[in-house]
Amino acid sequence: MDSPDVGELTPPNRTLMGPGPSDVHPRVLRAMTTPLVGHLDPSFLDIMDEVQELLRYTFRTDNTWTIPVSGTGSASMEAAYGNLVEPGDTVLVPTNGYFGGRKAEMAERAGGDVVTVDAPWGEPLRPEDVAAAFDEHQPDVFGFVHAETSTGALQPDVPELTAIAHEHDAYVIADVVTSLGGVELRVDEWDIDVAYSAAQKCLSAPPGASPLTLNDRAMNKILDRDQSPRSWYLDLSLLEGYWGDDRSYHHTAPITSVYALREALRLVAEEGIENRWERHRETAGAIKAGVEGMGLELNPEDDYWLPSLNAVRVPAGVTDGEVIDYLLSEYDIEIAGGLGDLSGDIFRIGCMGHSCRPDNVAFLMTAFADALETLGADVDADAGIAAMRDVL
Amino acid sequence: MDSPDVGELTPPNRTLMGPGPSDVHPRVLRAMTTPLVGHLDPSFLDIMDEVQELLRYTFRTDNTWTIPVSGTGSASMEAAYGNLVEPGDTVLVPTNGYFGGRKAEMAERAGGDVVTVDAPWGEPLRPEDVAAAFDEHQPDVFGFVHAETSTGALQPDVPELTAIAHEHDAYVIADVVTSLGGVELRVDEWDIDVAYSAAQKCLSAPPGASPLTLNDRAMNKILDRDQSPRSWYLDLSLLEGYWGDDRSYHHTAPITSVYALREALRLVAEEGIENRWERHRETAGAIKAGVEGMGLELNPEDDYWLPSLNAVRVPAGVTDGEVIDYLLSEYDIEIAGGLGDLSGDIFRIGCMGHSCRPDNVAFLMTAFADALETLGADVDADAGIAAMRDVL
Repeated sequence: MDSPDVGELTPPNRTLMGPGPSDVHPRVLRAMTTPLVGHLDPSFLDIMDEVQELLRYTFRTDNTWTIPVSGTGSASMEAAYGNLVEPGDTVLVPTNGYFGGRKAEMAERAGGDVVTVDAPWGEPLRPEDVAAAFDEHQPDVFGFVHAETSTGALQPDVPELTAIAHEHDAYVIADVVTSLGGVELRVDEWDIDVAYSAAQKCLSAPPGASPLTLNDRAMNKILDRDQSPRSWYLDLSLLEGYWGDDRSYHHTAPITSVYALREALRLVAEEGIENRWERHRETAGAIKAGVEGMGLELNPEDDYWLPSLNAVRVPAGVTDGEVIDYLLSEYDIEIAGGLGDLSGDIFRIGCMGHSCRPDNVAFLMTAFADALETLGADVDADAGIAAMRDVL
Repeated sequence: MDSPDVGELTPPNRTLMGPGPSDVHPRVLRAMTTPLVGHLDPSFLDIMDEVQELLRYTFRTDNTWTIPVSGTGSASMEAAYGNLVEPGDTVLVPTNGYFGGRKAEMAERAGGDVVTVDAPWGEPLRPEDVAAAFDEHQPDVFGFVHAETSTGALQPDVPELTAIAHEHDAYVIADVVTSLGGVELRVDEWDIDVAYSAAQKCLSAPPGASPLTLNDRAMNKILDRDQSPRSWYLDLSLLEGYWGDDRSYHHTAPITSVYALREALRLVAEEGIENRWERHRETAGAIKAGVEGMGLELNPEDDYWLPSLNAVRVPAGVTDGEVIDYLLSEYDIEIAGGLGDLSGDIFRIGCMGHSCRPDNVAFLMTAFADALETLGADVDADAGIAAMRDVL
């Protein structure tokens, strides 16, 4: 077997305006060049404390149990479902997007009985439907998606949903993958028991260490389990030994990913979380104005608009795939198409974290206008650019 | 809630001579500053192919199913056990080290019935004991540790062990966490069905993407499962969709960790895998000669010496903890103590990947001699340094 001849790493220089990963800030890339210390080094234990403190700030929570999970976003999702859901628990999940289905998969594998609350793809859950599902099924755990990456729809009324769940003594798991650090989220004030996220969306760190927070109520359910969770790697009662007071070895933490997350979270703290939410609304607002100015429609109603992920309906005259390919090949810009029920119907244009900048928006809208015009869509590109410029 | 005031990342500049992580090569750190492309970008699909090719070279295998798992080493271990072990399978695991116990935990959570084959901590399994355990228990899956990180013992006779298992139609899972890329390992020639490893040992990449290889026989068992594996994140039948021909979305890969692993594996290919094994034997041989020259003993017999992790018995007159603390505080060198049955009895001195260099060995031995003399151990430090210099 000869040595493979693999050359230097020279990927193209993309501008990442899809559903994630987003562009990583140069300071975060630089932090990743920091030589490693051991995962039990006293200096790393201090770094862990700092990351936990920064995560609490970003989640808007005082939860002790606030950690980065050693994997990408789906690992933090499975850590939430795999630990909180016990065999025989009834788990209520939504059907209004791709990531609701993933929750059902994970809850079932954890031994839960899955029931659903329905809404069309691209629309949020209605509190009255959630209340009716609670009355019918009496679930033990209720999972919902705050910011649906697959549809670009924001779930409003979060405190109403958590109140319904808590009136029924249920636990609430919020998917905040595409909101944390970019869209208003208040874990404690909104009474969310468990929330999980990812690094590569509005935090703009590379995927690899994924935020998770649990309040004492949720953690007590986990620590009182009769059976161990089905994953050893993601067992939070064991991870408590490492991230809690003992600092005892469980598994080797992804040290460099923790360095990266720390730097990304420092950028959040320096900007101020509320300023950051406002920046996302304003900057993504220019995308929204621009595409609407061209004559295109956003898929969600304005009340459910998700600044971090703009779902734009594909206009007549083009297919999603040819526009996506054009942007990638002609401009090195990544955007994405729809999934599931919205496959072929929408473009998904992210505006997250360090990707959420006026220069990226101006470049994207210029390229998008060119793609639509060149490929023959019936749009008023000049009006769109003018509308974008008014806001930007 | 005020913004946390967390300063620049400035960890101490350690020399990592413990059980991992090892020092990361500057080229690997630099590769991690490469701006991200999306996990479905055509250019990333090419990078995935390259990483798979490089992993095959390093594992000495032609297995199609050779991928980095999106987590640290324990994630690749759980991917192996959680997928190959089905509920009701009998799983034979060793008791001769800390990581045997972890396999039992994972196999049980996967629904397996665990039986054991015993050897003292620090000694390898004997083929006759494995054969007896097969006759007694008729296990479906046999897991063993090629290089026990907790005891510094190498398992010889691997082809004999795999032959016993295959005569009984069982599957073999090899833990090669502390051997891959540093100690002779031949997955195909030795007839290993599944092998998993980590990035932060002899490959010297930061932990975060962990090598796993499975032959078709093992993969067919997984694809024929009646029940889904209990983890969605680590489900190899779903990961097949991403890493196989379809390249369909499962979860977001840890892109930067894949970049890092690619560069670390390029360094392996440039050096040549057999040269690399030889470098570890020679360079770690200077540690072995040095500590023996001082009058210390290695815990394993010479036949089971593991160059990548040298288990040195703690001499009279000092405790492991005070020596470890002295090296860290006075020299910024990380080594570790024993675990479990060997707790307090051994030092664990790693010599892995980019840490396995003459300059590191000279520095370590100088510091170790100082620590032992200063703290009052009965050693002949000068003789040890001379013996180390003879080999180095």
